[in-house]
Amino acid sequence: MTWKADKARKRIIVVGGTAAGPKAAARAKRLNQEAEVVLIQKAPELSMASCGYPYYVSGGVASRDQLLSTPAGVVRDPLFFAGAKGVKALVNTEATAVDPKAKSVTIRDAAGKRSTLEYDKLILCTGSVPRVPPFPGAGLEGIFTLHSLADADVLRAVAAASAGKPAVVAGGGLIGMETCEALAASGMKVTVVEKLPNILGFLDPDLSLLVQNHARAKGVEVITGMGVAGFEGANGRVSAVRLEDGRSLPCHLAVVALGVAPNVELARAAGLAIGSLGGIAVNEHMRTSDPDIYAAGDCVEVTCRLTGAKTLAPYGDLANLEGRVAGENAAVGDRAAFPGTIGSGICKVFDFAAGATGLSERRARNAGYDVVTAVNASPDKPGFMGAKLLVSKMVADKGTGRILGFQCVGAGEVNRQVAEAAVAVMAGMTVEEAGMADLPYAPPFSLAIDHFIATAHILDNKMKGLFEGESCIEVRRAMDEGREQFLLDVRGPKEFEEMRLGRGETLIPLGQLRSRFDELPKDKDARIVAFCKVSMRGYEARRILEGKGYRNVVVMEGGLMAWPYAREK
Amino acid sequence: MTWKADKARKRIIVVGGTAAGPKAAARAKRLNQEAEVVLIQKAPELSMASCGYPYYVSGGVASRDQLLSTPAGVVRDPLFFAGAKGVKALVNTEATAVDPKAKSVTIRDAAGKRSTLEYDKLILCTGSVPRVPPFPGAGLEGIFTLHSLADADVLRAVAAASAGKPAVVAGGGLIGMETCEALAASGMKVTVVEKLPNILGFLDPDLSLLVQNHARAKGVEVITGMGVAGFEGANGRVSAVRLEDGRSLPCHLAVVALGVAPNVELARAAGLAIGSLGGIAVNEHMRTSDPDIYAAGDCVEVTCRLTGAKTLAPYGDLANLEGRVAGENAAVGDRAAFPGTIGSGICKVFDFAAGATGLSERRARNAGYDVVTAVNASPDKPGFMGAKLLVSKMVADKGTGRILGFQCVGAGEVNRQVAEAAVAVMAGMTVEEAGMADLPYAPPFSLAIDHFIATAHILDNKMKGLFEGESCIEVRRAMDEGREQFLLDVRGPKEFEEMRLGRGETLIPLGQLRSRFDELPKDKDARIVAFCKVSMRGYEARRILEGKGYRNVVVMEGGLMAWPYAREK
Repeated sequence: MTWKADKARKRIIVVGGTAAGPKAAARAKRLNQEAEVVLIQKAPELSMASCGYPYYVSGGVASRDQLLSTPAGVVRDPLFFAGAKGVKALVNTEATAVDPKAKSVTIRDAAGKRSTLEYDKLILCTGSVPRVPPFPGAGLEGIFTLHSLADADVLRAVAAASAGKPAVVAGGGLIGMETCEALAASGMKVTVVEKLPNILGFLDPDLSLLVQNHARAKGVEVITGMGVAGFEGANGRVSAVRLEDGRSLPCHLAVVALGVAPNVELARAAGLAIGSLGGIAVNEHMRTSDPDIYAAGDCVEVTCRLTGAKTLAPYGDLANLEGRVAGENAAVGDRAAFPGTIGSGICKVFDFAAGATGLSERRARNAGYDVVTAVNASPDKPGFMGAKLLVSKMVADKGTGRILGFQCVGAGEVNRQVAEAAVAVMAGMTVEEAGMADLPYAPPFSLAIDHFIATAHILDNKMKGLFEGESCIEVRRAMDEGREQFLLDVRGPKEFEEMRLGRGETLIPLGQLRSRFDELPKDKDARIVAFCKVSMRGYEARRILEGKGYRNVVVMEGGLMAWPYAREK
Repeated sequence: MTWKADKARKRIIVVGGTAAGPKAAARAKRLNQEAEVVLIQKAPELSMASCGYPYYVSGGVASRDQLLSTPAGVVRDPLFFAGAKGVKALVNTEATAVDPKAKSVTIRDAAGKRSTLEYDKLILCTGSVPRVPPFPGAGLEGIFTLHSLADADVLRAVAAASAGKPAVVAGGGLIGMETCEALAASGMKVTVVEKLPNILGFLDPDLSLLVQNHARAKGVEVITGMGVAGFEGANGRVSAVRLEDGRSLPCHLAVVALGVAPNVELARAAGLAIGSLGGIAVNEHMRTSDPDIYAAGDCVEVTCRLTGAKTLAPYGDLANLEGRVAGENAAVGDRAAFPGTIGSGICKVFDFAAGATGLSERRARNAGYDVVTAVNASPDKPGFMGAKLLVSKMVADKGTGRILGFQCVGAGEVNRQVAEAAVAVMAGMTVEEAGMADLPYAPPFSLAIDHFIATAHILDNKMKGLFEGESCIEVRRAMDEGREQFLLDVRGPKEFEEMRLGRGETLIPLGQLRSRFDELPKDKDARIVAFCKVSMRGYEARRILEGKGYRNVVVMEGGLMAWPYAREK
């Protein structure tokens, strides 16, 4: 059967009904009420809040309907789409082929019946598929991904019945860590296995290690720098995860969270251009190599605004923005443009949030930037308002001072920090400009000098040669290499009693430093590493020592709060 | 006695020890370890967290030491300043005169002893004084301001002993509303009296009224558009506040929170230039009309970055940034520049936060801009994550699309919204650019399309003619003027049952609109006002009606959630 398009009416077909698709369909219809807009969805549900799956698995979200409903409590089903959006939504319906010459899509409904729909414009929002390597034993029962709502339904049920039992999550990225928290909330004993040296690859190691420590403190085992080699089983069920070093981790269930790949099967078969990263190639109008076909969401490659390079950015917020652009252009012609991504993201890991925007130090170096960075640890608001800790890292281009990226982790208000930094990165703001920002301030909400501004001050001081700082990672490396360095803790004796590095450091409280110079190395070229709890007093100490003629004083940035390794106490 | 400056050492004297002063002193010393930096402070305390006074008055902050301590718990007293900062701080010491010719400051200590100190550079951070008009009865006991820590000490003690008794706060600005909350937290029955038509003057009326409603719901009486005329008393104690209309409000205590004026006595007597707004005139280096005297904090006039006009901006965060610039320039020459303010601010009012950045609609119009605005009401995050409401207003320049200002109120996460908007305003971002922002998203933190982005989308649609919206205030005005309009509520019947306007509106749920056109006015030029709970469905309704040929459909922006007047239910 072929549905002929009514020639008087433009027909826009959207394939994919999770995030980009519904947005594209709704936008297209809004801008062209005369158009017929058809949304094809393989799953039974529409417009699922897929980023909420981990919170549904944990039981935090009580019912699956909550993931499918508008704020007013109406389920976003075909009836809703027809009435509220004027969009004809076909669920349980798969698009099996696109014929760009005939301008038609072949679909198959739940009963297996095939039809062919003609289109004037087509929008592909086919999303992504989880990357599951062909591990030995990958077909065993009890091995899950968390990609579809059906996945979430099953994992939720299994996890709820598995309290006290071991679970292994393969992959310590964003979804891996969210899944880890969800399973832990269900009472399971969770081990996360990450092949890279650090979890949460959008963070540099210094900040990533702090999140890892926090997850460990919550009872999660984290194994990094080690890949999964396969699965072991008994009676068709997974019983252990085998690591690349031969170790076996017994488990009741395993989740594979090794990222996603663009789902481009339909596009490729239709002869559309595919980019070098495996996503559908689109221009800034979200148009594919075919002038009548657009694409949006996880299935496309988008531009990194900072490097200009193509990138995969499978995030729900971008899917919506891209879908909006594709829908508008399909409806009224190519007038909207999607400017690309800067790589903003955030996730909750137990009581911590971890967020980043722009380029990490590693990515900035890889992109060829001459990079300067600063780490800052501070409370998020005044102590008398119940402050919580934030540790941040700012990455800037040495030549221009432009902020390239910002990362922030901790129990404090990471959300505001990363959001304001994201706008600064998008706007091309410099470190100096950020240091003069006029941001909202009141004690319940931030410090008088906001954490982001203070981070900019540290980096600005560093760029102007007023501050010689090293990350904890660099200081630790110097220790490991046996480099001679005088470790100077300038906190108070009570603080030292409660918590300390225990690596041979000398305690001279900052207030006494000016009168205790005789306890320091005589050699004015000796390397002195000054630190305190965060970094402020360490910085003051460096200025004092420099005033006294010491030429090689570095501040350990972020102080003990940013030290991601074991301490004496 | 004259302290001669050691000619080999630069002497920098800073007058004022609350916010700008300590920052200026510390920065100056850091950048010039050879300099002698002296901080003169009239009060017994230094570096007080003055923005925290309301939370100390309420008892939320347990001890006054918390307002005076570093995050590590060290009190910032002269010993701390000497040891940690290398700054000689003289407390209980008043600077009584400046002689710019002799380059000296005359001081008087607690015992009344006078000395004269020579300076190389002087930094005036003399702050502000509360504006207390010469009301009849202003000298009665029981009338307070909340400006100094001594004020806070007294008010805290009196309020704690006055539970159940009436208090009147004159002034519904930021400090007035924070004080109102503090007194209510102490159990007092509080009335706020504001002479202007609305409280919190940084908000436009539409948003201000929502905060006012919230304060009322918390048991506070709010009287607007009415000034205080004087105080009545018995036995030397205040017993009532008399309003301009002759009414008397009985009270056990009254707080005057009518704003602050720059404290420029010392500067004026020294012959320094004073600006037209009454603050010390400074250039971008925070230098006064005397090349050796700088000034920073509440006592100066700064530049509004948006209009270029001079303005008074007595905020703790700006005081710190200005002090940092003044300290640097006094220490090493004029190299740092303070770019001015955009007027960012935030405050807590019971369970609401209210924040703004840039220009309000009123201020933008006064500054001569051709202004477009949009109001948006939405949850701050997905419903399944425990969403709370945000209501925002974006103000933009019609010609360029540049965002001039953003206001946000509600129980949701106002903090992130105003912070990201502030950076956008500073960066000169356009509405269209904001609508394509790549911001951090995960369900615990925001909506997939962040509230700020969604607000930009509404305004962008409006600017492109896709959306004809009016604020609730405009719709209400049309009602009051008896203009014929068809009020169309497009929510569901259950929602209508629970809450409704009750102004003769017709309920047609959005999903049924396409099949119930016959219930609408026949005249396609009839004015139809479409609305729902927030604004999304109202917007959809408008598109549908337009598609049907209606030419005069407006959306009531922000829907019922932004309606600041009484409802039927």
